[in-house]
Order: sequence, then structure tokens, then C-alpha cells
Amino acid sequence: MKGHLGAGIEVITQNEIHWIFILVFYHINLYVVKRQMEVNVPDKMGGFTLPGESGYEKLTLDLANKWGADVIRDSDGTELSEEILNTGYGIYSTVCIIRGHNEWAKSHREQLQQTFLITAPVLATGEELTIPLLHDFFTEHFQINDSKDSMKYWQVYDRTSEKELSLKQYTYRKDTKEVLLKGVTPWHEYTVSFLAYRIWEEISMYNHTTNRWDKEHLMPIDPRHSETWEYLLQWMKDWCEEHKHTTVVRFTSLFYNFVWIWGSSVQNRFLFTDWASYDFTVSPLALDEFEKKYHYRLTAEDFVNKGQFQVTHMPATKHKSDWMDFIQAFVLRLGKELVQIVHDYGKEAYVFYDDSWVGLEPYHKRFAEYGFDGIIKAVFSGFESRLCSGVQVKTHELRLHPYLFPVGVDGSPSFLEGGNPTSEAKQYWRNIRRAMLREPIDRIGLGGYLHLVEKKPDFITYISGLAKEFRQIRELHKKGKPLLWEPKIAVLHSWGELRSWTLSGHFHETSWHPLIHVNESLSGLPFEVDFLNFEDIKNGRAKEYDVIINAGRKGDAWSGGQEWEDEAVITLLTEWVYQGGVFLGVEEPSAVDGFHHTFRMAHILGVDIDLGARVCHGKWKYTVEERRDILPSNCKFQPHQKLYLTNGKTCVLEEEKGIPVVTRNAFGEGFGIYLSSYENTPEHARLLVNLILSATKMDLSQEGMTDNLYTESAYFPQSQILVVWNNTEQIQRTSIIVRGQTVICNLEPYETKFLSIGNHYKGK
Amino acid sequence: MKGHLGAGIEVITQNEIHWIFILVFYHINLYVVKRQMEVNVPDKMGGFTLPGESGYEKLTLDLANKWGADVIRDSDGTELSEEILNTGYGIYSTVCIIRGHNEWAKSHREQLQQTFLITAPVLATGEELTIPLLHDFFTEHFQINDSKDSMKYWQVYDRTSEKELSLKQYTYRKDTKEVLLKGVTPWHEYTVSFLAYRIWEEISMYNHTTNRWDKEHLMPIDPRHSETWEYLLQWMKDWCEEHKHTTVVRFTSLFYNFVWIWGSSVQNRFLFTDWASYDFTVSPLALDEFEKKYHYRLTAEDFVNKGQFQVTHMPATKHKSDWMDFIQAFVLRLGKELVQIVHDYGKEAYVFYDDSWVGLEPYHKRFAEYGFDGIIKAVFSGFESRLCSGVQVKTHELRLHPYLFPVGVDGSPSFLEGGNPTSEAKQYWRNIRRAMLREPIDRIGLGGYLHLVEKKPDFITYISGLAKEFRQIRELHKKGKPLLWEPKIAVLHSWGELRSWTLSGHFHETSWHPLIHVNESLSGLPFEVDFLNFEDIKNGRAKEYDVIINAGRKGDAWSGGQEWEDEAVITLLTEWVYQGGVFLGVEEPSAVDGFHHTFRMAHILGVDIDLGARVCHGKWKYTVEERRDILPSNCKFQPHQKLYLTNGKTCVLEEEKGIPVVTRNAFGEGFGIYLSSYENTPEHARLLVNLILSATKMDLSQEGMTDNLYTESAYFPQSQILVVWNNTEQIQRTSIIVRGQTVICNLEPYETKFLSIGNHYKGK
Repeated sequence: MKGHLGAGIEVITQNEIHWIFILVFYHINLYVVKRQMEVNVPDKMGGFTLPGESGYEKLTLDLANKWGADVIRDSDGTELSEEILNTGYGIYSTVCIIRGHNEWAKSHREQLQQTFLITAPVLATGEELTIPLLHDFFTEHFQINDSKDSMKYWQVYDRTSEKELSLKQYTYRKDTKEVLLKGVTPWHEYTVSFLAYRIWEEISMYNHTTNRWDKEHLMPIDPRHSETWEYLLQWMKDWCEEHKHTTVVRFTSLFYNFVWIWGSSVQNRFLFTDWASYDFTVSPLALDEFEKKYHYRLTAEDFVNKGQFQVTHMPATKHKSDWMDFIQAFVLRLGKELVQIVHDYGKEAYVFYDDSWVGLEPYHKRFAEYGFDGIIKAVFSGFESRLCSGVQVKTHELRLHPYLFPVGVDGSPSFLEGGNPTSEAKQYWRNIRRAMLREPIDRIGLGGYLHLVEKKPDFITYISGLAKEFRQIRELHKKGKPLLWEPKIAVLHSWGELRSWTLSGHFHETSWHPLIHVNESLSGLPFEVDFLNFEDIKNGRAKEYDVIINAGRKGDAWSGGQEWEDEAVITLLTEWVYQGGVFLGVEEPSAVDGFHHTFRMAHILGVDIDLGARVCHGKWKYTVEERRDILPSNCKFQPHQKLYLTNGKTCVLEEEKGIPVVTRNAFGEGFGIYLSSYENTPEHARLLVNLILSATKMDLSQEGMTDNLYTESAYFPQSQILVVWNNTEQIQRTSIIVRGQTVICNLEPYETKFLSIGNHYKGK
Repeated sequence: MKGHLGAGIEVITQNEIHWIFILVFYHINLYVVKRQMEVNVPDKMGGFTLPGESGYEKLTLDLANKWGADVIRDSDGTELSEEILNTGYGIYSTVCIIRGHNEWAKSHREQLQQTFLITAPVLATGEELTIPLLHDFFTEHFQINDSKDSMKYWQVYDRTSEKELSLKQYTYRKDTKEVLLKGVTPWHEYTVSFLAYRIWEEISMYNHTTNRWDKEHLMPIDPRHSETWEYLLQWMKDWCEEHKHTTVVRFTSLFYNFVWIWGSSVQNRFLFTDWASYDFTVSPLALDEFEKKYHYRLTAEDFVNKGQFQVTHMPATKHKSDWMDFIQAFVLRLGKELVQIVHDYGKEAYVFYDDSWVGLEPYHKRFAEYGFDGIIKAVFSGFESRLCSGVQVKTHELRLHPYLFPVGVDGSPSFLEGGNPTSEAKQYWRNIRRAMLREPIDRIGLGGYLHLVEKKPDFITYISGLAKEFRQIRELHKKGKPLLWEPKIAVLHSWGELRSWTLSGHFHETSWHPLIHVNESLSGLPFEVDFLNFEDIKNGRAKEYDVIINAGRKGDAWSGGQEWEDEAVITLLTEWVYQGGVFLGVEEPSAVDGFHHTFRMAHILGVDIDLGARVCHGKWKYTVEERRDILPSNCKFQPHQKLYLTNGKTCVLEEEKGIPVVTRNAFGEGFGIYLSSYENTPEHARLLVNLILSATKMDLSQEGMTDNLYTESAYFPQSQILVVWNNTEQIQRTSIIVRGQTVICNLEPYETKFLSIGNHYKGK
């Protein structure tokens, strides 16, 4: 009955047409099915950055050939030999500008980078109290800055009453590094907040520890000091002079690392880690300059915030926003100068968006001013690929995982005994591929110690195929954009566009937030997606979108916290939904205290949470509406224990333990949709699609949609190529309707197929 | 080897002593085991109130005899015939003073009882809006009070901006019962709060509906109106004149029912039900009088609170507290007069603590002024028995369940086909018995339609045995108090003594609050227990106790809500624990926003919850300390998803899904103990005992403790009687050490045994 063209692809032949006619007799559409065939998009090589390794020259060149590399790079801890540098490949050289200057650092210790620290609260059992400042901290990481300039920013707080102590109430003992408090209230707790130099650059400290290096500890220097900055400018020029072979300077990244405070106890080594917070940009000099510019003075408390710090997952205070703007302006001013030097030497400047990236926001409206030629993003996930694609820069490059280190960044034993780097690479590629098929990436690459792959031949083979696949996808994008479905989606949170796609770091670092799961699903779906903040809503931008998603918990940055107090936000969104918009909330959307509902969008969602005040209210009875067309099997949800229906009309699509978990409420011409939880799975991604399409009154069967949710596809009209891929470890069979044709396709685990599609209806 | 005295009791004979000596050789204590015997405490009959039923005279007298009744009562819906009245039994007559006066009510409709109602929020899609007032409500329950006096208390709110509208912005249409709003903000939601008469007394409405009565709807009249009050005084006198046989007037209860707002939709009939709230005490007259006395005016919003109402489970506002005081003073003033009339006629006055009990608080400091001779409490649970025992009144009576109605108050099909009233009675008795063995009860009884028991002979037999057991317990208490263990316990919440033991209504109505489970466990444990509020703490009363328990959720009345903001509370409790006190918190103890920890007692508990701000903080690693002496098998806990350890020293006694659920933190001489959840089970009750004893540095094996946690015991030193009982449906074997003797005892399901204990060491 069926003809076969290449492994696993079935093309339904003309002979079958009358059978199909019978089968689809009661359907409105009759698809003509013919002429799909698997194609080999020509592999032009290139677009691949290989980490070279001195002492492994043969391996380096051999793999460059196998993987189609056009560029060789060095890595943290590796060097390129003259032999490699002279092969004619493009050469990326890694520069972490603020470390590796220990001579300068030792002679200018007051120009080391700093941070605010706060002691754990200490209980007063009498009227005097001694607080040792470094008791809680890893002393190889920090050194107290007890200069006069610094101490004016120190603060001592009574944490029981939340009142600051006056200077008269305490003294600092330099010899013992303790603060002595007098006249305190017995049985209250006290903290000291102070400035400390960071005497070990954190990424270096981490790599050092992970790889058991026995080297000098690198110290981070602060370009805020003009002396250090002049030194660095000269250093950069000298470096360019010396590195003739380098074609691209790869900045890792610029000046300030994300905050990473190490503790004294092995029971709790990482006291505070926030990939997107600005704590490490602070110094008395910066604080003084801030005061001059903003006409008010920041305090230690603005940073340490009762010991909670100001985490990216919570909405920024006005003070924090101002500080971020201040730092961004500074980093841009200096960063531009560095890029200019690189350009002056005829080299390109790429920025690696990780590590010391703080202050450099790729989605900042002035990012293009840096003049970077490329951005490189380390990726595990689809959202990271989209994050990279969306930056306004010429070249977008992904640094794939696993990193060629014995132990992976996420703790996997990648290249150790028992590690399976191929399996890791496959899973990451599965995540990234679907995103890369929606928005283009220009280059991929690896990093680390190349010799580690020597004993992993299957890894070498797998990367070879992956590189080819990447280049095929890249070629398709060059010819024209893939097909998108109509609904335009906005994700609404308090950071908006500035933090498009990412929350703060990698997926595994933020996986307990529902939004990262939503973003990851969206990254590979054929929808246009933007990220809005609440100012955008107040500026009337909701009407540019069909669907607005708000996914987070009460008070957090992703839900929006106090932004929801603003009645203008409510009014505008209410009108927008009433006129046909779809507001889709996850977990605790629009939640804030002080109003008649905790969810400010409860009237639209038809659900709310009860924080205790409504425990004596009756509960609306409901029946679950079976909508298997919308809700795939195997969708799992965590019920929200405090959820209740606000009226009897909210449609419950799914419940768990007697609590609604998926609901839909008709509101005017639009809908409010609620999900109590969201996990990035193929089932949930399809649910998201179904909810979006049905609420925007679109056909649930869209062009290019696979009928098997474990597979996805992308159609490139200009190339007339349909890409179909398998997101699972199992063999899958799927069918897709494109341009009036039905393609049925068998896919090996994780397989990608490129199919040529003839288009009769366009009269070709 | 063993001698038997009565079924199931093993007395270890002298012959076994040397074997025991060998067995206990390595133990410090050598117990002399002898001379226990099961005793029959003489049954003196009486102490039992039987519901009589006209037309079933023979049954009434027969059962009075079988159950040892000394009193016959009528019930709601039943009457006593002359034949019964003339038997010489004591006669209780039920009086619900505010209903059953429909003639008066019809001619004085403006003197009906009232309540504030609030419409569901209505969305404005333009600048005008019409809100129908009764749309959401059961119209057989409410009638709008649109008098001038009433309307001055109405309020219209923009709920989106939480602003009140001025009188100019709306008008009321009497004909359509709608409020018309002009100049509203499109896309905002609006509510109207108004006063309504209650035209069907709620308990009557409930019984009517449950039993499908076809009678006139009884209307509640309000004694706040002097005319109605004069009428009622005369009615009471006339009633006493007419009821010569009545020995006890059983008030059910006085004037105001707990709030119970019925809705228009069968999908959500009971819109709001709070057994302890004062909403139904309101009227324009009362509000005006309040203003005169308190010099400020209450508004509708003080009651309806954005539609949330002011539920007992949340801390009271100052306005609510003032209103409660105002109502309590009024109910006392009038209630005293009624009691006086009853006394003047040579009868006794008992109050049934249920239904229209609002304003009459048995734990109010002025309760004795009423002059009631007895209090009757309907009981399902142990805490209700303790609640009754603790009231300052001569006679304490329990009205047992199941009520002799086809369907029970908790919805059980008690006397319907398939119902098992004996099984119900057994389970309630299991709960009540253990409480009654700690604090005495003077009488028990039943209520309802006696004829329903005719076809349940096993129920008749069971109640007969139960009544005998009750009288045996009562006799023991008369001779002297049972033995208590040393630690003195206080339960701390925002209501304190006023709401001793109860939260608000029966167990099944409040079972999702951990405190009711704690109270229920405590009700049958041999500890002295008091209930404190935060004023008590500030007055230094912590030092009277060894253990303070705080069990609730952030913001609720049981945790304490904003009371924890007061630093005096923290200071005093911190010092108290440091000097040896034990603070035991359940679920979200001491939780409030705005401080460095959410649990204000985190420094003592060693745990806190993270509401999002600490998501980037490191987590302290821990190992679970196996303490099987403290933690019984089969203890189940719900982990608190947001819990974290505040330091590395907190001892984790149990974890669930990787989250600590039972922790103990040494703090000075005392301890902080945390339980993430608490369910009243035999295992948890024993855990509570173990935690209390170990933290107060007491021996874990106390006098009179059973070694089998499914059994408990009480020792009455004056009687030299040990009572041992089985809390399960299975046969249990247990051993108890009392006065240096070991008793080993086999117990049938739910069995109680009374054992005589000789005491050699007191030299008798």
C-alpha cells in the first residue's frame, strides 16, 4: 500500500487517495498528499568553534575537520600552541578583563572589587554584644574593607525591632574584626552590614575548586578606579599587539560577576547566588558617584535587605533599579572603549554572556552601542537559544554543553568514569534544536579540555552529526523565516524585555519557578513571543498581542508583586480581555494583598486563592468538563491548596485531589485561563498550544502541527522544506498537514528529518 | 503462669516476681506488681437527659429506665405529652426566645433581626451600572431594609480601586431593588453593601429543609427594640406560668444566631458560615447606640470587609473587638433578666451553647453574672467536653451525637437506611471519654426524635452501657482529681481564653486548621492546659507555663497575625525560652511580613519559611536524627514546601520529601520545636507527649503512661482507681506503671476498664 522514500518516511501514494477519501468523508478538508521527500540540505561546513588544546595538536586538527570547525578557541585553563595558531583557522581568544592582574591587584588592594555582607543575626542576652564580622563567610573569599570611606556605609540593625543603631552605639575593633555593641536591648537580634573586598575571583575560585587547581588565587580588580581603568586600557592594547593570530576577542564577559557569596561552613557553602543581581558592582567610590548623580545616598540595607538581599526573582525596588541603571551606564561607557581598541587592531569583539556579565544587559535598549560583533551564550535549554537569537548583534553563537570538563556545570559527571557526555549532549540538543528552528543561530561551539573527548568516540561521532544538522537549519533560516501560527504572545512580568526569555541563569538554577517552564515550552513553539513589563501595559501595548501570560507566585518578580496594585494595569487588561484578549495565569498570577481578591485578575480568571480570610465561605460546586481535544493525556498538575472558584460559571477542565487545576472563564469576547502549575513536558507544551489556539478561536489543527505531541515540526515556505523532529528517546510516528498535504513520518529517537514539500496550491 | 480476674486483665502473680526480676535486671526501677482488680464503680443512675416524644410514651419511659435518665426533655420539632410530664422526672423545656413569635414579627417587621450583605462585584463596561441587590442571595432568607435609618449605613465601593463612592454617585430603586451607579470607571468592579432583614430564622430554616417540614417560616425578632423586649419579658413570664412541670428552662441559646448567609444558587447554597462571628447582631438601632457609646461610627465595610467578612479564623480588628464587647454587654444585660424570671418561678435556667449563642461567651470574664445554673454543649469531640467542663457554672451537660434526626449535623445518614448510629456513637464517645476522664462532666443526654431508635436495638444497648460508664467516671471525679503530669501548657492565639478549646464550631467544621487537631489531642492528655492571648504574654504570663504552643497559618487568628509585629512579645518569649521554656510551633507559627524572618520565632525554632525572597540562598545540609523514643512509627506529616533551616544546628527529627517536618532547636536552657503539620491521631498525640516531656527534661516514661499508644489511662489517687481505655476498633494489650506497680491489660475495641490499685508505698 505504501511507498517508501528513505528510512522511516511514508508517502501516501495516489492509489490510496480513494481510501483516504472514504476515511475523511465527513471532514471538511480533503488534503492532497504527495511528493514529500527527505532532502539533504548541503552542508557548507563552518559555523563551529572548536576548543583547541596545546599538546593535543593532532587531535585539535582532526576534530576541527570532523566537526567542520572554522574557528579554534582557547578556554579558561587551556592555551593554544603556535602550531594551532598557524593553521589558518579563525582564532577566538578568551579575555576575562578583570582578573589575571595579580601584580597590579597586590599593589592596589584598595582597587579590588567589593561587596556588601551582612552577618547572621546575633542574639543579645545582656546589654552588650560582640559580633565577629567574618564568622559566617569563607575567609579565602572576603577581606573586610575597614577604610574610612567604606565604614561610612556600614550599618548595625536591631532586627527584632527593625531599627538602625546610631554610630554612638557601636565600635569596630580592627584587631579582632569584631563590632562591639553597647546599650542594646536584651533578647533582641542584631546584624552588622559592612563592605568586604573579594580577594578571589569567583569563577576562578569555582574552577579552581572543581578541578583541584594548585595556582595562585586570581583577584578581581575594579575599573571604577581610574588608575585601574588606565592600566586595563593599556593592558588591552598590549594584549592586542601580542595576539596577532587572534581574529576574535571573546570577552568573558566584562567587569562584574553575578553575586556568589561563599560561606564558612561546608554544610552551606553557597550562602547566596543570584545570576542576575548587581551586588558585586559596589564600592565606596561607586556609591559616592551614585549619590552625586542621583542626589540620594544608598545604604548597605538597600543591598543586604535584612539578610535576604535583593534577589532577581523579586521585584526591584526603586533604589535597586536606579543602581542598575547607574551600573549599566558605567559598564557601557567603559565596555565601548574596550571594543574600540579591539576594532582598532582589526579584530572582532564577541561577548560571552555569562560570568562577569553584570551591568551588560543584552536586552538593554542601548546594547548596540557597545559595538560587539557577536554574542556567545552557554546553553542547556531552548530558552537560552532564543535569548541569544533575539540580541541585536551580527553573530549569535551557542556554547553547547557538556562543557569539556570532568564535571559539568550542573554537577553531571560528564567526562568522568560513569559519565555519558553523548547522552547529555543529545538531551541538550533536543532542547535547543526546537528553539533554533524558530529563530536562527549563526554559530555553535564547545569549550574546555579537548583531550577529554579522546576516549569518547561516540561523542565525537554525535557532535559531527549535530554540527551538520545545525548547519542545515542555519541554511534554511538564511532563505527565509519558518511559518508561525497567528496568535501573538506576550509574557508579562516585572522585568519585561530586559529579562526576555531568562529568569536568572540556567534552567536547573530556576526550575522551581513555573515561568522558566513556560518560557522553555514557548521557545520551541511557532508563536511570536515578546516580554512586557507593567509600564508596557500602562502604555497600551496589550492590544499588540492576542495572549498575555503571567506565571509566578504572589509577590515575586514573575507574577509582578506590587505592580498589580496599580488600578490602571487592571483596567487596561480587563478591557483588553473583554474585547477578545486571553489572559493566561499560572500558579499565583496577579496576586497581591489588600484587595477584594488576591488575584487581581480573579474576575477574568474565575479563580482566586484564599489566604485564610475566606475559609468560612461556601465553595462553588463544579463538574469537570472533559475536553480531550484540549487536554492531552498524562498532563500532571500540582493543585494549589488555597484555590477556589469565584463563581459558578468558570469551566473546570481538570482537577486534582478535588481542586481545579486547569480552568477557563469566558469574559466578554475573551478568556481567562488558569493553570495551577506548569512543567515543561511535551504534554504541557501541547496543552499550552491547545489553550492558546482555542481561546483565540483558532482551529486546533494548525498548518504544520504534528498529530503526535512527542514530535514537532517547522515549515520553511521559501525553501519548501518541512523539518520534523522527535523530542523523545523512543521511536515516534507522526503525521503533519502542510500546504494541503499530509506527511506521515517515522522518527528514530531524537531524530530530525528535512522533507521537501511541493506546493500545488500556489500554482508552482 | 497468669491469673485472670475478669475478662482481659492479667495480674502478674507473686510467683512471677523472680522472672520479672530477671527480665528487668538491667533496668533501674523494679516495680512491685500486684493486687490490681477490675472494679464496678457503683452506678447511681441519673445524670442523663432523655428526649421524650409525644405519642411514644411507652418508649420514652422504657428508655428512661434503660438509660438511667432522671430528666426528660423536648426538642425542636417534638413535644412532651401530659402523660410524660406527669411521670415525676425532671423536665427540661427548650426555649428559643427569639423565634416562634410570628404574629408579633408580622406586626413589627422593622423589629426583625438583620444583617449586612454585600453583592458580588459587578463589572462596569461603561459609565453607568445597575446592581441588583438580592441577585446572589436566597430570597426566602433575606428582605432588603431600605428604611432611611438603614440606608445611611449602605455603602457602594469601587473594588478595583478600593474607594467608596459618594452618595451623589448612586441611587436606589425600591421597585426593582437595584442600585443605579453613574459616572463609574469603565472596567472597574463595584459592590453594594446594604442591610437586610432575616425573614427566616436560620436553625429553623436548616431543620425545615433537612426534615422537609411544611410549616410556617419562623422569623427572628430582635430584643434590641424595647417594644420587642417588653413583649418577650411578658412572654417569658407567661411561659413560666404555663409550664408548671418544667424544672429546667433550656435556652437555645439567647438572642443572636451565628452568621449563616444562604445564597441563591444551589451550586453554592451556604455563602458564608461562621459559628463564632457577630454579623447577625447588627441593626441601625444597634449601630446608632454603638456610636453613642464608643464615639465613632461603624460602617458596612467593618462587617462585609470587601466581601470577605470578618471571619473568626482571622484576627479581629479593633472595630470588631469593640462591637463584640458592645454586643456582649447587651446580651448579658437582657439575658440576666430572663434568668431572673426563670428563677422567680422556681425553675433552673440552663443555656445550650450553640445556635443563637452569639454575644454569650462562656469564657467571658462576666459570664457568671448571667446566673445560669447549667450549660449544655453538643459534642462530637474531646475538646468540646473540655470546653464545657471549663465553664464557671454549677452543672455541665453534654448533648451527645448522633442527634436523633434522620441525617446528622455532619451529614451522616445516622438513622436512615444504611446509617449506623451505634458506630457513630462509639467514635464520638471515644473522643469525649478521654477528655471527660481529665475534667469532669455532670450530665449527658440526647436530643431529637426518640422513635428513631426503636428499630436500632444495638444503639439502645450501647447507650445503656455508655451511660453507666459516664456515671462511673463522674463518681471518680467526685472523689478527687486524676493525676496530671508536670509540664503546664499554654496555647497561644489571638483570641486567648475567650476561645478556649474551640476554634469556631465543631471539629469537622474547622478540621483543616492544625490547632483544632492539637486541641483535640490535648483534651485527653494529662496536662494542665490554658489558652492565652498576646496581651497575656505582654503581661508576663509566659512564666506560668513550661510549654507554649502556637499552631496556625500566617495571618490567621491561631498563628496570631500582626500580633507578632510587637517586639515586646518577641522579647518576652525569647527570654522565656532562653531560661528554659519550650516554644512549640505548628505549620506557620509566629509568621508575619516585614521582618528578617517570616517566623518571628525563627531564632528559637531554627526554621523559617521563604516567601520567595530567599530562593537564591543556600540550604543548610542536615542529617535526620533517629529518635524512635520520641517519634512513634506511622506519624505522617505534610511538608511545608517553603520551609528552610535557619542554621546548621537545628536538629531534624523527621523529613518528608527532602524537607524537614519535625525539628528541635536548643536555645539557651529551652527549646524551639517545629511541626510542619499536625493531625489528631494516637501517634501524633503520643509524639506531642514525647516532645513536651523530653523538651521539659522530664522522663519519657511518666506515671500512668501506657506503653501502647493506642490506649490511654487516667489514675484517680483518692479512689485508687486506674481507668484504662482503648481508642481503637482493634483489641489492644497495654501495660501501665502506677504507684510502683505494673498493670498489663487486654482491652476489647473501644473498651474502658476501671482497675483498683493498692498502694504499698503510701504505707496503707
